[in-house]
Amino acid sequence: MINARIQSFRQKMMEHQIDCYIIPSSDAHQSEYVAEHWQCRAWISGFTGSVGTVVITSNKACLWVDGRYHVQAEKQLKGSEFILMKQGLQGVPNFIEWIEEEMQEGQTIGFDGHVMASSIYKELLHIGKKKVLKFKMNDDLMDHIWEDRPPLPKKKAFVLDTSYAGKTRLEKIRDVREEMKKLGGESYLIPNLDDLCWLFNIRGNDVKFSPVVIGYGLVTMSEASLFIDECKLSESVRAELEGDNIRILTYDYIKEYLEKMDVTSMIYTPALTSISLIKALKPSVKCIEEEAIASRLKGIKNDTEIKNLRECQIIDGIAMVRFIKWLTENLDTDQITELTVEEQLRLYRGQHKLYRGESFNTIAAYGENAAMMHYAAKEDSFSHVEMKGFLLVDSGGQYLNGTTDITRTFAVGTLTEEEKLDYTLTLQAHIALARAIFLHGTTGPHLDILARKPMWDNGLDYKCGTGHGVGFFMNVHEGPQTIRNNNNNVALEKGMILTNEPGVYKAGRHGVRIENTMLVVDAFTTECGEFYKFETISYCPIDLKGVLVERLTEEEKRWINAYHQMAYEKLSPFMTPEEVDFLRSITIAI
Amino acid sequence: MINARIQSFRQKMMEHQIDCYIIPSSDAHQSEYVAEHWQCRAWISGFTGSVGTVVITSNKACLWVDGRYHVQAEKQLKGSEFILMKQGLQGVPNFIEWIEEEMQEGQTIGFDGHVMASSIYKELLHIGKKKVLKFKMNDDLMDHIWEDRPPLPKKKAFVLDTSYAGKTRLEKIRDVREEMKKLGGESYLIPNLDDLCWLFNIRGNDVKFSPVVIGYGLVTMSEASLFIDECKLSESVRAELEGDNIRILTYDYIKEYLEKMDVTSMIYTPALTSISLIKALKPSVKCIEEEAIASRLKGIKNDTEIKNLRECQIIDGIAMVRFIKWLTENLDTDQITELTVEEQLRLYRGQHKLYRGESFNTIAAYGENAAMMHYAAKEDSFSHVEMKGFLLVDSGGQYLNGTTDITRTFAVGTLTEEEKLDYTLTLQAHIALARAIFLHGTTGPHLDILARKPMWDNGLDYKCGTGHGVGFFMNVHEGPQTIRNNNNNVALEKGMILTNEPGVYKAGRHGVRIENTMLVVDAFTTECGEFYKFETISYCPIDLKGVLVERLTEEEKRWINAYHQMAYEKLSPFMTPEEVDFLRSITIAI
Repeated sequence: MINARIQSFRQKMMEHQIDCYIIPSSDAHQSEYVAEHWQCRAWISGFTGSVGTVVITSNKACLWVDGRYHVQAEKQLKGSEFILMKQGLQGVPNFIEWIEEEMQEGQTIGFDGHVMASSIYKELLHIGKKKVLKFKMNDDLMDHIWEDRPPLPKKKAFVLDTSYAGKTRLEKIRDVREEMKKLGGESYLIPNLDDLCWLFNIRGNDVKFSPVVIGYGLVTMSEASLFIDECKLSESVRAELEGDNIRILTYDYIKEYLEKMDVTSMIYTPALTSISLIKALKPSVKCIEEEAIASRLKGIKNDTEIKNLRECQIIDGIAMVRFIKWLTENLDTDQITELTVEEQLRLYRGQHKLYRGESFNTIAAYGENAAMMHYAAKEDSFSHVEMKGFLLVDSGGQYLNGTTDITRTFAVGTLTEEEKLDYTLTLQAHIALARAIFLHGTTGPHLDILARKPMWDNGLDYKCGTGHGVGFFMNVHEGPQTIRNNNNNVALEKGMILTNEPGVYKAGRHGVRIENTMLVVDAFTTECGEFYKFETISYCPIDLKGVLVERLTEEEKRWINAYHQMAYEKLSPFMTPEEVDFLRSITIAI
Repeated sequence: MINARIQSFRQKMMEHQIDCYIIPSSDAHQSEYVAEHWQCRAWISGFTGSVGTVVITSNKACLWVDGRYHVQAEKQLKGSEFILMKQGLQGVPNFIEWIEEEMQEGQTIGFDGHVMASSIYKELLHIGKKKVLKFKMNDDLMDHIWEDRPPLPKKKAFVLDTSYAGKTRLEKIRDVREEMKKLGGESYLIPNLDDLCWLFNIRGNDVKFSPVVIGYGLVTMSEASLFIDECKLSESVRAELEGDNIRILTYDYIKEYLEKMDVTSMIYTPALTSISLIKALKPSVKCIEEEAIASRLKGIKNDTEIKNLRECQIIDGIAMVRFIKWLTENLDTDQITELTVEEQLRLYRGQHKLYRGESFNTIAAYGENAAMMHYAAKEDSFSHVEMKGFLLVDSGGQYLNGTTDITRTFAVGTLTEEEKLDYTLTLQAHIALARAIFLHGTTGPHLDILARKPMWDNGLDYKCGTGHGVGFFMNVHEGPQTIRNNNNNVALEKGMILTNEPGVYKAGRHGVRIENTMLVVDAFTTECGEFYKFETISYCPIDLKGVLVERLTEEEKRWINAYHQMAYEKLSPFMTPEEVDFLRSITIAI
């Protein structure tokens, strides 16, 4: 089927005189989770992971995926003519380098400019200059061959109350304008859905796992506009927005609006903005390329959001402990599968009235499945949990008062010495980062090695980042902060949220990950400056059955005991006596 | 005097209708150590540190210096109208941000384009776009007021034998051309002196501490040219170069040559290339901005260089131990001053026939002087070493078989608890980095926190990098690799040299630094990739009198004992029995 799709796609490429076509994962808003309408890369390749890029030429079809997806993509591409390009491995070119190598002078590169980030277009232009290539970007070729392509979602938007959001939309727009002034920009384009929803204090159901609504935002010094399919707005939501002087314009009008717009300058973020939008601007508009203002503001949670988040994490922790109790009590019943694990988690999370769904596709991965960082069990392909090895469970919820993301790896039976060592190293890596103290100005990449060191010392590594930002009732992956080995210049600020998720992944054997969410808080101030630290705000016991206790330092043991004590104190007031007994049993000091 | 110079400089600025003039530290070759002729910034400000930038407007005169020089600059600017801008401290703008803030629309910024890096010019242009500023860059205003300005040096160049350099200049030019091909560049400009001397296997005496000769290099696919004041070339050196088909052209001809040059493209490094040279190119020449090819090649030492370096480090270690013996034996004589320390070090290093001078101005800093990272004692201002606190000695030598850079901090008498803690933390920081194991692809910045962590955990920090590259009979500071908290993308490769020099600096109290030089070598290869580690190649005992042994872990003690054992084994074969006894006494296991 996949090969047939490639063939008919090549037919279209020939008709359009395109020699090489790029199909990124992205939608028109550069989202991580994209509505089905935009899942072109998954449709053409069969690879269903969240990130990947397809490039098709007349005789080759390649898919690039990062370390999280090497194993999964290998499985999903099997039988197709797709060549898997494992990003991050030595000697593997990225897709742009590959195109540069493959393309001949005078050839044409095609892509859909509506979904292609202008930052990537800029890199492509660089090849174009070296090799004199042509670009065609006005045609979404996929539309011609994808017959039953789903339409754009039409779900309703709703308002997020200030008691959750902490700031009114007018306060946020004021903050955004302050930043615009500093950058000397007259207008600011917001194509990404989470910044848009954050700014206007709205949410929606257009994208699975992300409570966002599809639209564009545009802020000038005098106006704030929302481009949205008007069917999404109830009268009351429209009235509330218009009451705050937000101008409502129709979604499809954005390009035309930009074409006509009379401003001297436009601030936008190349990585978040499709090249079609930028090409729409009059040549006289000065482009100010900046990290997204709204992302930066959104990344630092306000006091109300932090208060809410701490409560949300307690709700999530209670669900997690109930799940662990169920798992523990049913391990020997032979009834546990990856799918029942997912189901049970949804059940426990769903018991709370603020719950609004999963924040991402739960990864319940038994045994070797856990070596795939972003594994997903399916109705027709899942594992039974046996009484040996590890069950890895990475899950999270969307709640009106926050978003959670937590991973626990459970020893569900006997473990090999290798498994125990890998589990212990993962725990040590997790603790090393959780205990970090860092000077103000420090970036996440600077901290990355704290978690990676126990791995590297033992010849291990995880081919992914150590941590990411998390939204507030918003995307589970959120910028601008990260903890990974890259060039992220964003200093960690008080109020930022980051995950801490080192792991070990051994294809065909097992996978381990221990993930909590952390908040950046004050540590102390000395003559050398202001120091910050992390406060872990996921409250859920860590399975200690796999730990080689003799390898732990006293500090590490103290951290574990303090963490378990905290989890007990936070969660036990909201649990039944039987649950409290269970919680006590899994938080006993070591 | 300084204020008078500022005044006459402002006079010149008015005559030239310049509102703001920038005086960087750099010479026409973007050297770190610059010939006196180019020491404009020091002359106008009185600040003698190696790096700093002066900006003068009609009513303000400011000097920017980084953390290494905060204390020193404060002392040296006293009494002048210069405002000290301490880079790296919170809230202090860099000089470009400051200019942006100060300048009004329509005003003119001036600087000498012959010494201004094109990378900095590009940043200035960015302000210019926002504020509509003018630039004047053809005039070296300093020349008008600096009456006794020293001329350019005329010292002779000499050839570095291949038995030291490891590769012939023809092999190096071939390597460079290979890299040019990869970048698609037809010509490659080499304005920086160390890359130039490395490429042509020549050395000189034009700049104090750096065995370089002033000139420019230019490589095309068919030619290699050296622009040099011809008086610098003896007949035999000229004959050898011309024998290898190196074209010799006169130094001042470079700009005219570039103006006339017919090539399609030029590879150059904006941070190393003065804007005047770039402006000289015909508009049709495509500029390919890249990290310097020669710097990258030079940074990875070849096997011959490594063999030589290990020998050179033994020579240097012997001198250091002799110095420590002298220091130990004379501490109670009341005869030791910072100046005699410098003298004695020169004496011991000078005993070897391959020695060619100091690799930088020795920092012999007693007591609170050591809080100035780059302190220099002077004939009219130096301290006596008393029998309390620390003496910090940072020194290095230029040898035909390598360049050294080593710091030891000696407890010369009683220490306070604070001093002991700071010394112990510095040692722990040093050991943490020395023991690092890292995956191939890791950059220096990624490792930086290993050394910084013991500091940060205790509320301390050093406001400078942790390590830098070191040349081979070349500049003591050499790129492209670094270990500091910045965005250096250069992966650490086998054969690279790096220093490891964490420290504690407390103004008015004391300073501690422990510095060794390390070589990147293989650690092991696993299924996760190729892992590297550091081999410490400075061989000199570390003073243990200041160490709080009870704070050390077993691994740290093991590292110290193994290091001292190695130093003993490397050095003792070349020492007198009395010296060996002394060496043994200071390398006893703890």
